[in-house]
Amino acid sequence: MVTAIVLINAQREKINSIGEQISGFGGVTEVFSVSGRFDLVVLIRLKELNGLSQLMTEKISNIEGIIRTESMVTFKLISKHDIAAMFDLGS
Amino acid sequence: MVTAIVLINAQREKINSIGEQISGFGGVTEVFSVSGRFDLVVLIRLKELNGLSQLMTEKISNIEGIIRTESMVTFKLISKHDIAAMFDLGS
Amino acid sequence: MVTAIVLINAQREKINSIGEQISGFGGVTEVFSVSGRFDLVVLIRLKELNGLSQLMTEKISNIEGIIRTESMVTFKLISKHDIAAMFDLGS
Amino acid sequence: MVTAIVLINAQREKINSIGEQISGFGGVTEVFSVSGRFDLVVLIRLKELNGLSQLMTEKISNIEGIIRTESMVTFKLISKHDIAAMFDLGS
Amino acid sequence: MVTAIVLINAQREKINSIGEQISGFGGVTEVFSVSGRFDLVVLIRLKELNGLSQLMTEKISNIEGIIRTESMVTFKLISKHDIAAMFDLGS
Amino acid sequence: MVTAIVLINAQREKINSIGEQISGFGGVTEVFSVSGRFDLVVLIRLKELNGLSQLMTEKISNIEGIIRTESMVTFKLISKHDIAAMFDLGS
Amino acid sequence: MVTAIVLINAQREKINSIGEQISGFGGVTEVFSVSGRFDLVVLIRLKELNGLSQLMTEKISNIEGIIRTESMVTFKLISKHDIAAMFDLGS
Amino acid sequence: MVTAIVLINAQREKINSIGEQISGFGGVTEVFSVSGRFDLVVLIRLKELNGLSQLMTEKISNIEGIIRTESMVTFKLISKHDIAAMFDLGS
Amino acid sequence: MVTAIVLINAQREKINSIGEQISGFGGVTEVFSVSGRFDLVVLIRLKELNGLSQLMTEKISNIEGIIRTESMVTFKLISKHDIAAMFDLGS
Amino acid sequence: MVTAIVLINAQREKINSIGEQISGFGGVTEVFSVSGRFDLVVLIRLKELNGLSQLMTEKISNIEGIIRTESMVTFKLISKHDIAAMFDLGS
Repeated sequence: MVTAIVLINAQREKINSIGEQISGFGGVTEVFSVSGRFDLVVLIRLKELNGLSQLMTEKISNIEGIIRTESMVTFKLISKHDIAAMFDLGS
Repeated sequence: MVTAIVLINAQREKINSIGEQISGFGGVTEVFSVSGRFDLVVLIRLKELNGLSQLMTEKISNIEGIIRTESMVTFKLISKHDIAAMFDLGS
Repeated sequence: MVTAIVLINAQREKINSIGEQISGFGGVTEVFSVSGRFDLVVLIRLKELNGLSQLMTEKISNIEGIIRTESMVTFKLISKHDIAAMFDLGS
Repeated sequence: MVTAIVLINAQREKINSIGEQISGFGGVTEVFSVSGRFDLVVLIRLKELNGLSQLMTEKISNIEGIIRTESMVTFKLISKHDIAAMFDLGS
Repeated sequence: MVTAIVLINAQREKINSIGEQISGFGGVTEVFSVSGRFDLVVLIRLKELNGLSQLMTEKISNIEGIIRTESMVTFKLISKHDIAAMFDLGS
Repeated sequence: MVTAIVLINAQREKINSIGEQISGFGGVTEVFSVSGRFDLVVLIRLKELNGLSQLMTEKISNIEGIIRTESMVTFKLISKHDIAAMFDLGS
Repeated sequence: MVTAIVLINAQREKINSIGEQISGFGGVTEVFSVSGRFDLVVLIRLKELNGLSQLMTEKISNIEGIIRTESMVTFKLISKHDIAAMFDLGS
Repeated sequence: MVTAIVLINAQREKINSIGEQISGFGGVTEVFSVSGRFDLVVLIRLKELNGLSQLMTEKISNIEGIIRTESMVTFKLISKHDIAAMFDLGS
Repeated sequence: MVTAIVLINAQREKINSIGEQISGFGGVTEVFSVSGRFDLVVLIRLKELNGLSQLMTEKISNIEGIIRTESMVTFKLISKHDIAAMFDLGS
Repeated sequence: MVTAIVLINAQREKINSIGEQISGFGGVTEVFSVSGRFDLVVLIRLKELNGLSQLMTEKISNIEGIIRTESMVTFKLISKHDIAAMFDLGS
């Protein structure tokens, strides 16, 4: 399982329509418009890194009106159980 | 429902432990270590903006080793149905 | 109650007219032209986060001539009474 | 009347106490902790630029734990009436 | 008395003519072309903050070819006499 | 005649005293504390570039508490007369 | 197969020893000291994204003296054959 | 032997075709599309610095659609053997 | 004698021809195309600051295709003899 | 022949002594203290890229007080003769 997060800046008047186009791509689980310096945040969950490559280089990169993307591949889901494990070694 | 995304840079050797601490706070649904310029991405879902305020200003801000946070409050979840609706006005 | 502050950079010759358009939107309490790196600062006070979303993604984002916005949702109004409270625990 | 807005980045664990100290200074009308890249936003309204100078260079600059400030002096309050006036010249 | 300093980046081929236009505005005491990251530095001395507002939002903002301005309102003129005063309290 | 402008960021609590020290150096005509991203702006007028070198590399660089300086050597004083000259070639 | 490239800034005097430590980790194929804004560039080739996660969050993140890392996961190896293929569809 | 690494930002819709063009140039060993702030990373290995100059200033600089390049010439390949050598002085 | 160094970013396809134009101006001793974030570095040696002003504001600023210049006036040539002098005071 | 230019930011009070140390290294032809955002500019001319590597990774990187270096390897010396050549093909 590969999870990725993409921060997007887009042309002001196209933010909503770009968000909708991206939300229709396979593997995209959520698209948010957000406060702050970025316009959209996209959450992606796919079976393989390969699918992510395709999504980024063939689909998202072809949408008109996107100015800048900054994608992050998640290395590790940090869960609460990791803490529990730290205190629970010998029991 | 309020959703927020927080980008975090932390002291190198504390990234994992900071991630674990944050994952234990109420409202935090996922904490990822990520590729790129940031070290951690935190997803938060809470009932009210108030809870988010508390999480940010009383809990996350007190963790040692965090260098920089950039939080984004989501304005809108853009769903695939919005596109459907565009083509489905009169049916 | 949700308070937001928006920093705006706009095309030089449209700064005043953009400011006037924004000042006419519901929820916008003050629009200032300012010294420094930004051109306009907008203060917004609304009942719900929902209204803010609409203002940002449907109204402000459609004004022509805006180059960049950086919006901040306020987490907490810090008042002088908080200090008083600190010294007044037992009385 | 002089209005100023100050964006502040502070040491993580001192954000709340710095906010409270600033909120106690004369001329400071509101201090917010905010989402995004900055930690605090301060609104100041004073009779003269002189008072603002004192506040910035003698009071705020002496608070411990502030990393960076970016102050903006407002040039002009843009009001809705300006639009009205544009369409109402001859009536 | 209000003193302001404005850093300007302009379209390469218009730097000189923009400088000349600005030097003709009331309140502008000096305009320099400079080495470094900025193209022009403007010194302004006016009786009131109001005049500065007008100069910035109605005059300089309407000149064609300006890409970016960063204006600074001076808080305080620091003079040599302040030091003298420090060592000269009782004499 | 060489004119230079220096933008300075300094440790918060030392801004005033640094400004006073600099104002005492030969060739320094004005030191301002300012709004915005910088803390101090220094105006320097000297007979030769040599004097400026000394001021920057032997005096200002030795003051404690300065974090960052960005100096600009002025290339040209743009005056109102330049415009007059443009329209006055043949008269 | 996962390929990653990591740009590193490190404490000046530790660049060489950090480079050597990283070159000893499994999956690291090359470590270069480079001209420009970064100090080291690391090339990594691993069977799975999982291994990369471990390398980044458990090994590289624990080396002392690293100031900043910016890692990039490669989406796609673009080869010359792709061009050939474009002109060779029907043959 | 000269090794260079080039980080490229390109117009969104031309990233793939730019990558393919570059991969066809002599001396280019690999072109990757990548996650993060950059779009393409190019690895170059050539016999002489001269060849690199030609590749950068006559070939890559002429491709349409490239927005920004940041090239790094590698100073030194840091190998595992350097560590071995450190512990193997006297044997 | 005034020495200046100018860092230039230019439109990709015009870098060579801009370099050649600049190399033809009086006072320009060397023009290099370089690795890294900048495209060209220009070395200038002139008798007076006046000549530099002319070169920057009347010649280089009029070349088409230059995006950004960052010029540096050298304050001081630091030579090896300065060290020698330190150890050679009394001999 | 390899030419390199290095931009350096250093601790304020050590700029001169760092400049002098660097000026003593083989291959360093000039060290300037400069106006603007950087503190020192170093010009290096060496027979081989190898020597540059050594200078950067073993000598300059070991000097105390250097905060940041940005080195540029020159690709090509652009000379006036290149223009002449353009107009002189057939004569």
